Amino acid sequence: MEYPSKLIEDAVNEVSKLPGIGKKTALRLVLHLVKENENKTYALTEALNKLRENIRFCDTCHNISDEATCSICRSHRRDKSIICVVEETQDVMAIENTSQFSGVYHVLGGVISPMNGVGPSDLKIDSLVSRVAQANGVIKEIILALSPTMEGDTTAFYLNRRLKDFSVKTTSIARGVPVGGDLEYTDEITLGRSILGRTLFS
Amino acid sequence: MEYPSKLIEDAVNEVSKLPGIGKKTALRLVLHLVKENENKTYALTEALNKLRENIRFCDTCHNISDEATCSICRSHRRDKSIICVVEETQDVMAIENTSQFSGVYHVLGGVISPMNGVGPSDLKIDSLVSRVAQANGVIKEIILALSPTMEGDTTAFYLNRRLKDFSVKTTSIARGVPVGGDLEYTDEITLGRSILGRTLFS
Repeated sequence: MEYPSKLIEDAVNEVSKLPGIGKKTALRLVLHLVKENENKTYALTEALNKLRENIRFCDTCHNISDEATCSICRSHRRDKSIICVVEETQDVMAIENTSQFSGVYHVLGGVISPMNGVGPSDLKIDSLVSRVAQANGVIKEIILALSPTMEGDTTAFYLNRRLKDFSVKTTSIARGVPVGGDLEYTDEITLGRSILGRTLFS
Repeated sequence: MEYPSKLIEDAVNEVSKLPGIGKKTALRLVLHLVKENENKTYALTEALNKLRENIRFCDTCHNISDEATCSICRSHRRDKSIICVVEETQDVMAIENTSQFSGVYHVLGGVISPMNGVGPSDLKIDSLVSRVAQANGVIKEIILALSPTMEGDTTAFYLNRRLKDFSVKTTSIARGVPVGGDLEYTDEITLGRSILGRTLFS
């Protein structure tokens, strides 16, 4: 595509580096900013710059936080004996939205993926192991809430091996038919797992 | 939604003001920036700030330009006797991509829309009229390439009235069945227009 201005082209190139945003969408966004009052652009860029300059991560669980320890780790209402291990901050937010979990988290920052050059040392795995070790038996259960993918399974397997010397129960979130889903359209692997993982009708 | 950090919340609020980007997409984009190297964020914000600070519009056609006169208006290859009137820069780019037009443009900056408080004085209409007046008969044709909407039609009607005192031909781009479209699924109004606007089979 030929752009009427080098400035537009540069801006489109930068915006289209964001995930899920192609050149056409980027152009639409950039031209929207040009049409709007310039203060809107400055408010946007300032918010992003501030974010990038001041963003911090919780020393305990590595979730995004405004302080050295995040609000979940600081809370007295949270059960410190259960740690839910997730890949990213998004997952913490998703689980928090369910209101079904009152323990604390541990954000790995990804999953083991040799294809993408991500090994165990690139993730917060050692930090999790030392967190369990230093807790002196306070931690009773580690819930692995990782993506149901090859990489997620590999990471879960690795974590389980690293944690087996401690007296903690390692569990994994249930895999099965999604609520509201249609049995007919559920893929075989998920349906197979839902049969293997069947629970007692209470 | 509850965000783990005020910085994230502010950034999400700003990003979600962009058209077609909701809170969920904004969060995904913001968390992507946090995960990436900080230089990527700075490159993005710098490109946007530079764009907003230095963006200029062509004095003649009001298209976005890096100089006082845009490359199309400066070009000796373009036919200055035909002006194509469009709403926005995007439209210039779309028409340029067709390679079917060798004249010059005039970017109105929108269409007359009383519902949105946009009147003729908010657009580059006076500028178009004086451009035609000052050309001393050089301009032979004005092509109105406006959106086939109520607002576009209103604007075309208004422009036609403003230009009727000059010896210029005012034309409108053809409305009809889109190429590759299916007659069966073409709406009645478009199909009706395509019959009214039929052309001789050559």
